[in-house]
Amino acid sequence: MTPADDAALFEGLHRVATASLAGVMLKLGLSNQWVRGPMPIKPDFPRVVGRAFTLRFIPVREDVPGAFAKKLPVNRDAVENMPAGCIAIADSRGTLDAATFGDIVVARMAKRGVSGIVTDGAVRDRNGLLAIGLPIWTNGITAPPPGTRMLLAGWEEPIGCGGVAVFPGDIVVVDSDGVVVVPSALAAEVADKGLEQERLDAWQLDQVARGVALSKLAPLPKITESLP
Amino acid sequence: MTPADDAALFEGLHRVATASLAGVMLKLGLSNQWVRGPMPIKPDFPRVVGRAFTLRFIPVREDVPGAFAKKLPVNRDAVENMPAGCIAIADSRGTLDAATFGDIVVARMAKRGVSGIVTDGAVRDRNGLLAIGLPIWTNGITAPPPGTRMLLAGWEEPIGCGGVAVFPGDIVVVDSDGVVVVPSALAAEVADKGLEQERLDAWQLDQVARGVALSKLAPLPKITESLP
Amino acid sequence: MTPADDAALFEGLHRVATASLAGVMLKLGLSNQWVRGPMPIKPDFPRVVGRAFTLRFIPVREDVPGAFAKKLPVNRDAVENMPAGCIAIADSRGTLDAATFGDIVVARMAKRGVSGIVTDGAVRDRNGLLAIGLPIWTNGITAPPPGTRMLLAGWEEPIGCGGVAVFPGDIVVVDSDGVVVVPSALAAEVADKGLEQERLDAWQLDQVARGVALSKLAPLPKITESLP
Amino acid sequence: MTPADDAALFEGLHRVATASLAGVMLKLGLSNQWVRGPMPIKPDFPRVVGRAFTLRFIPVREDVPGAFAKKLPVNRDAVENMPAGCIAIADSRGTLDAATFGDIVVARMAKRGVSGIVTDGAVRDRNGLLAIGLPIWTNGITAPPPGTRMLLAGWEEPIGCGGVAVFPGDIVVVDSDGVVVVPSALAAEVADKGLEQERLDAWQLDQVARGVALSKLAPLPKITESLP
Amino acid sequence: MTPADDAALFEGLHRVATASLAGVMLKLGLSNQWVRGPMPIKPDFPRVVGRAFTLRFIPVREDVPGAFAKKLPVNRDAVENMPAGCIAIADSRGTLDAATFGDIVVARMAKRGVSGIVTDGAVRDRNGLLAIGLPIWTNGITAPPPGTRMLLAGWEEPIGCGGVAVFPGDIVVVDSDGVVVVPSALAAEVADKGLEQERLDAWQLDQVARGVALSKLAPLPKITESLP
Amino acid sequence: MTPADDAALFEGLHRVATASLAGVMLKLGLSNQWVRGPMPIKPDFPRVVGRAFTLRFIPVREDVPGAFAKKLPVNRDAVENMPAGCIAIADSRGTLDAATFGDIVVARMAKRGVSGIVTDGAVRDRNGLLAIGLPIWTNGITAPPPGTRMLLAGWEEPIGCGGVAVFPGDIVVVDSDGVVVVPSALAAEVADKGLEQERLDAWQLDQVARGVALSKLAPLPKITESLP
Repeated sequence: MTPADDAALFEGLHRVATASLAGVMLKLGLSNQWVRGPMPIKPDFPRVVGRAFTLRFIPVREDVPGAFAKKLPVNRDAVENMPAGCIAIADSRGTLDAATFGDIVVARMAKRGVSGIVTDGAVRDRNGLLAIGLPIWTNGITAPPPGTRMLLAGWEEPIGCGGVAVFPGDIVVVDSDGVVVVPSALAAEVADKGLEQERLDAWQLDQVARGVALSKLAPLPKITESLP
Repeated sequence: MTPADDAALFEGLHRVATASLAGVMLKLGLSNQWVRGPMPIKPDFPRVVGRAFTLRFIPVREDVPGAFAKKLPVNRDAVENMPAGCIAIADSRGTLDAATFGDIVVARMAKRGVSGIVTDGAVRDRNGLLAIGLPIWTNGITAPPPGTRMLLAGWEEPIGCGGVAVFPGDIVVVDSDGVVVVPSALAAEVADKGLEQERLDAWQLDQVARGVALSKLAPLPKITESLP
Repeated sequence: MTPADDAALFEGLHRVATASLAGVMLKLGLSNQWVRGPMPIKPDFPRVVGRAFTLRFIPVREDVPGAFAKKLPVNRDAVENMPAGCIAIADSRGTLDAATFGDIVVARMAKRGVSGIVTDGAVRDRNGLLAIGLPIWTNGITAPPPGTRMLLAGWEEPIGCGGVAVFPGDIVVVDSDGVVVVPSALAAEVADKGLEQERLDAWQLDQVARGVALSKLAPLPKITESLP
Repeated sequence: MTPADDAALFEGLHRVATASLAGVMLKLGLSNQWVRGPMPIKPDFPRVVGRAFTLRFIPVREDVPGAFAKKLPVNRDAVENMPAGCIAIADSRGTLDAATFGDIVVARMAKRGVSGIVTDGAVRDRNGLLAIGLPIWTNGITAPPPGTRMLLAGWEEPIGCGGVAVFPGDIVVVDSDGVVVVPSALAAEVADKGLEQERLDAWQLDQVARGVALSKLAPLPKITESLP
Repeated sequence: MTPADDAALFEGLHRVATASLAGVMLKLGLSNQWVRGPMPIKPDFPRVVGRAFTLRFIPVREDVPGAFAKKLPVNRDAVENMPAGCIAIADSRGTLDAATFGDIVVARMAKRGVSGIVTDGAVRDRNGLLAIGLPIWTNGITAPPPGTRMLLAGWEEPIGCGGVAVFPGDIVVVDSDGVVVVPSALAAEVADKGLEQERLDAWQLDQVARGVALSKLAPLPKITESLP
Repeated sequence: MTPADDAALFEGLHRVATASLAGVMLKLGLSNQWVRGPMPIKPDFPRVVGRAFTLRFIPVREDVPGAFAKKLPVNRDAVENMPAGCIAIADSRGTLDAATFGDIVVARMAKRGVSGIVTDGAVRDRNGLLAIGLPIWTNGITAPPPGTRMLLAGWEEPIGCGGVAVFPGDIVVVDSDGVVVVPSALAAEVADKGLEQERLDAWQLDQVARGVALSKLAPLPKITESLP
């Protein structure tokens, strides 16, 4: 896709809640696109949409760096490879007693134009991060630095994050209900159906406000459209 | 009990903190009445008291609806059976990657006069729910709709919620310390002892403020009154 | 150490974030000093530094008190032994369905000049605790009183709290990133290196604000200084 | 279905491993039919097939029995309702510190011709159960009786067991790989495809024994037949 | 109690299953006496009865030993204090990635006449332990030595083990259903009622073998004798 | 290293228990080399030593294969790349409700001369696997095939397995105490010190058998040799 395509696509997705996206993808047969765990570090971040820039961490080992220093990638190099507008999403294996990111790295990511950060681990320097203002979705807050428990093993690889497969270039949407991953190939269809769903939800809320019972609003939806 | 009885009873319970109710019930031999997990989705909901309207969910299965569509109850029918003033409390089996309730259903529950919602699962449409304003206690926030992971199996049955047995008609009290379940048959006694406990606590806090040591305040309480 | 020594030491530690302390201790070979779990009950407590006053809890047993009433210490006696300025830190075994502390005990602790409270369990009377204002770090909020699930087994013993060893007299530092434990014998060295780290971090943040890439800022740190 | 239909159906299913059944159902779009947790209490039980007789448990409450004694069903009545050949499968909510079943109840179930027992909780009287010999799949062994932690809430209702929906009359197959639930309406199709799968597996194992590489054996299967 | 008292008491307890003891204690109001987790490392250990010798572990810290070497007790000293016939029971905080005990320490414990070992952590040298033959109940098997993750903090203190309070001198009974703790002051009563329960169970099993339905065997037991 | 080097090295390691290797590596400063979780599927496999051949899995997604079929590696290709004598070790993210490996793939691995298999997930076809006889260490047994929950994302990459970093070419040693990972660069030193440790252990066991107290046997070891 060209950046212009992305702009149009993202403009649509910005108007669709993650809740609606999850519902739309479920109807398309995708039942596992919501990242379990990460929540925003403050409640009022706006919805953010971006292409996934993936990072992958493994447990630390005390002889690394050292013997392996030259075999492994370096966090700061990963940051310098992130394109403006991406959402950095890290497979941190649920590690909560060491940070995936701290304020200095996040400040640099903000400077490079990264749109948002997702980790199924934790972040540190809470106050510093809030001051920077870059939207962050995380499983927790912690004090220890990354090297306490984890090593960067690679970037722009397929990863798992919060129980969900993420491929480089997938579209990540984050809002107050958390993080959903939209497969790139299905994004245009998901955006269209998501906008339609938003219209339906608005109409239903209006009907409910007028006192209409739910049973008058819509037929019971099927779980997937492809099953009998 | 008649609605008038409930009004008097609830008026008393409104003035008793869940912390005091848990303490009073422990002295009566009830050690497992606090629902593990659910917390309010915003910090300043008032204390709410109501009769339990129970819902029970089971894991989803891809052939349902379809073969079983006619065998299972329907969520929207459950909502239409909720009496004004009840607290809807759901056995969601701790499912966090799908919502027990979303904004449209909650809007209808608010319209019907439901007083509060408790789930040991999650809810979605966080911002929409906050706008509706109905007090909600939940284990988490999520994006996916209920059908992603769970099916309604019945309502007004005995359930477990957060490790606690809940029978239809039990009295549920929710505040900033969470959710307690008061057995209906013991409610008047619990309310009376709870008010007494509140008076004792206020006196103790006042004594502490005057600099009195705790050892001067009260004898060590027994765990249950019925044990030697 | 004398109180004067503590005053100088604490004055330094007050200016060092727990994130920096964790990083500095890691370089000294201490990889497990961040207490897993406890977070502040409100976001804007100031950083607090104090000597650890430890408490140790075990599971409750229905015949206690009674047969064992005379064999066990009493919570309120523990409180009367806490020196002004200490941080009370409790080994609560992760118990979330009963409170380690409630508002009356905390009010007395505040009156005695305790500087802060840490538990890897839960606290109750959330609103009362917020009104008292004593800084509290906890794994959760709950309604049931301590005796529902736990007994005090002793105080000023070596304990585990959130997976970390704590010895009476260790220095506990708490801020918005959680709780770190600084071994007393290493505290002066940790404080000095922590201040140095804070200066380095400030310089790095300034460099990043000027657009410098991370790779220009510093060499890759080793995990421990003592390994090859 | 008539008992004669069941006999023919079960005869087929007896020759299909749970591993093959899980694979076949996945191809039909059913991804959640393996009951997480329960394993056989001894390694060499034969494969067992039977219709599900469901039981549902909720957490215990100290005022039950007593106020609620007349509102709840009784375990021993459930047993007397189990038909010969059924597999009793219990929604025990993962409770491991109290038994779902003990030796006396199991002895009676054996006497009534029950074919097997599944619980996502625990059983007690391990030696007694082994002496009885009725095949049992369970999450654990425990000593405390059921009433320590749980109450029977009903039988022959839709339940969840180990994260799987089970409806009365579903077909349960248990072997050394655990427990799978086959929806009744799909059982004949699943049995046919399962037998086909067994033949394919036997042929593949034979080919591998002859030294054929896996890439020569079969095309990569799709996850579900209904997705593009 | 004198050793002669113990001999008589233990002789009775040896004939009572942990399942019966748990049931008897529940009727006395003790609902939490079964140690969650530990199971025998081989299936056919005989039932063992002994007085509890408690050990307490806390998380490791890299500066210990060293600064704290003189402040902490030493494992091997604990072993030399164990009386013949005791059951060593360790509060290991559920630590599975380091052993509470290994073969050399266990060999010495066997030499000193210790009757059995319980840990809610793990043991190592599985084959060596099986060769020694001392009965061991544990949550797991592991390779790393104790010092990897834990330090001995004391012995013969009140502890928690697997969620249960254990006081020095409590009576521990272990068999194929796990570990129960009998409070010393109640042991004679529990033993008597346990033998009675065993007789009742034997009679019930005999009745069931003759085809009697459970509903003919006994009235529904109350949860505790002291509740209404 | 040459195969001849490996032969000599492995001959030494075969005589060292994983418990001793973990102890030796701890003294070298490596505290996290035991893989949490995997245990042998039968108790009497011999000790196995081999170079790690790593596999990495991520969560499944219903649109894969399909859109991504050409972007991902294929399990059977991984198998054909495994050298004789290796130990295949899989980062399965703790997934227990789908198999990492089943009997057909394992039969092919046995045919190719793979020495052992480790997964922090599960395997299926338990009886088939036991018949093949290839030593397997796993977190569990399951029925569903891999594609139910996971996708192969790559092989011979750095991975995490059971909380431990594993690099291609690391030496994996498995026995009845589980799985340890020996960094390749340290393997010769670890083997030498391991053999020394085995001699010390044998001497200590002999001393204990003669009635010598532990305190007479050795000084208290330091946790790491490099700390003060």
